[in-house]
Amino acid sequence: MLAINREQLGYIPEERGGEVTGPLVVIDRQPGTQQAIRIDCSKLGSGAWSIPSQVEHLRFETKAKFILAIETASLFQRLVHHRYYETARCILISMSGVPTRACRRFIRRLADDQRLPVLAFTDGDPYGYCNIYRTLKVGSGQAAHINRFFCVPQAHYLGVTPQDIKDYDLEDAPHPLDAVDIKRARDALKNDPFIKHHKEWQLALQQMIALGVRIEQQAFAKHGLNFVLETYLPQKLKKGVFLP
Amino acid sequence: MLAINREQLGYIPEERGGEVTGPLVVIDRQPGTQQAIRIDCSKLGSGAWSIPSQVEHLRFETKAKFILAIETASLFQRLVHHRYYETARCILISMSGVPTRACRRFIRRLADDQRLPVLAFTDGDPYGYCNIYRTLKVGSGQAAHINRFFCVPQAHYLGVTPQDIKDYDLEDAPHPLDAVDIKRARDALKNDPFIKHHKEWQLALQQMIALGVRIEQQAFAKHGLNFVLETYLPQKLKKGVFLP
Repeated sequence: MLAINREQLGYIPEERGGEVTGPLVVIDRQPGTQQAIRIDCSKLGSGAWSIPSQVEHLRFETKAKFILAIETASLFQRLVHHRYYETARCILISMSGVPTRACRRFIRRLADDQRLPVLAFTDGDPYGYCNIYRTLKVGSGQAAHINRFFCVPQAHYLGVTPQDIKDYDLEDAPHPLDAVDIKRARDALKNDPFIKHHKEWQLALQQMIALGVRIEQQAFAKHGLNFVLETYLPQKLKKGVFLP
Repeated sequence: MLAINREQLGYIPEERGGEVTGPLVVIDRQPGTQQAIRIDCSKLGSGAWSIPSQVEHLRFETKAKFILAIETASLFQRLVHHRYYETARCILISMSGVPTRACRRFIRRLADDQRLPVLAFTDGDPYGYCNIYRTLKVGSGQAAHINRFFCVPQAHYLGVTPQDIKDYDLEDAPHPLDAVDIKRARDALKNDPFIKHHKEWQLALQQMIALGVRIEQQAFAKHGLNFVLETYLPQKLKKGVFLP
């Protein structure tokens, strides 16, 4: 096996995916001319820069303090709308569900290059924990031989945690876990080496199964549409306690 | 009912989706300051501008001759990589499957404002015809009352058509239609007012059922990886015969 990946060989993979905005300059090359071009991700209006499928050649300049990787496009849009990336001095990345290879590799290279912590913010459910966050952090089960390129070991999990249900008075907002959620959580507890490696995740999944509920990112809207950016995120960041 | 849509009321909808590149300047407003900002979609390197969820306020400047809306991110990436938007003087839009409301509304506003024709390029299968293209052109079945905002009546269908299988010698490349494809085609022939309105689409679906095959956009790769941009697209554009 060659110790390089498909993207390094110049193959154009299927997957694009992921959008980025905030105080970041990406130095890319123009297709065709190969001239260097600077893309200022803070000057894209209400849109964002969509991450290309090949990211190995990108270079970065930023004064951000961390990267916030977000599950849903709607929350990403809300944070962009309120310029949360200025308030918090962070780079916002929308994963739109399970992050693609390109999205993970982009976050990894950016985090390595600029020595940035990475925080993930997903719905509080087994899919958010065991599929989205797990894939971001350690890669996908199907591609074990190249996961070391397509994972973000410096990622930590900000929320939504089962503990947040209690801390933020969300008991009435969550949806009951359905059978497929419970099965996913139990399978992960039994079989997923990542979950089995981290007692904190085992406790979180057990707490979620015991509570019997899941919490979507928008559940905080019961406290006001901007509660998540004005209160929840600042408090969680100040506290600085994240799941591994 | 008010004759306005959710986006016009300032509601932030779930859906983002769609990426744009090519000879287009989008005039957006910076979130927060509301200052006008010009986004040159030809200067985004190997990436693209991701379309925000609200597009009503956008203004446009372009010298492009048409808009090419593409189903798959991989073909979009290949066209970007080879700067096809310069060769063909077109704006490229990646729909990534069935286009979201935001993506359709963006294409509609851009096409109306700049009087541009819109051509759609999807896989040649019932899903590409009856879901992706149909939703682009006339909107989704679920949102009949607002479809007049979220559809692109000026769209025409470039390919991949069943006739292309013969014209481009693809008989050995296609995959057989599976049961769900055949059911989708038959349902559309029987129940979809859009298909029932256009004899050309009825003939295309019947031809596809008779051939028993589907053709993916990448099927052209049997003639070389760049056949689609060097031969197929130029020939189809020159011929100028599109499905309605």
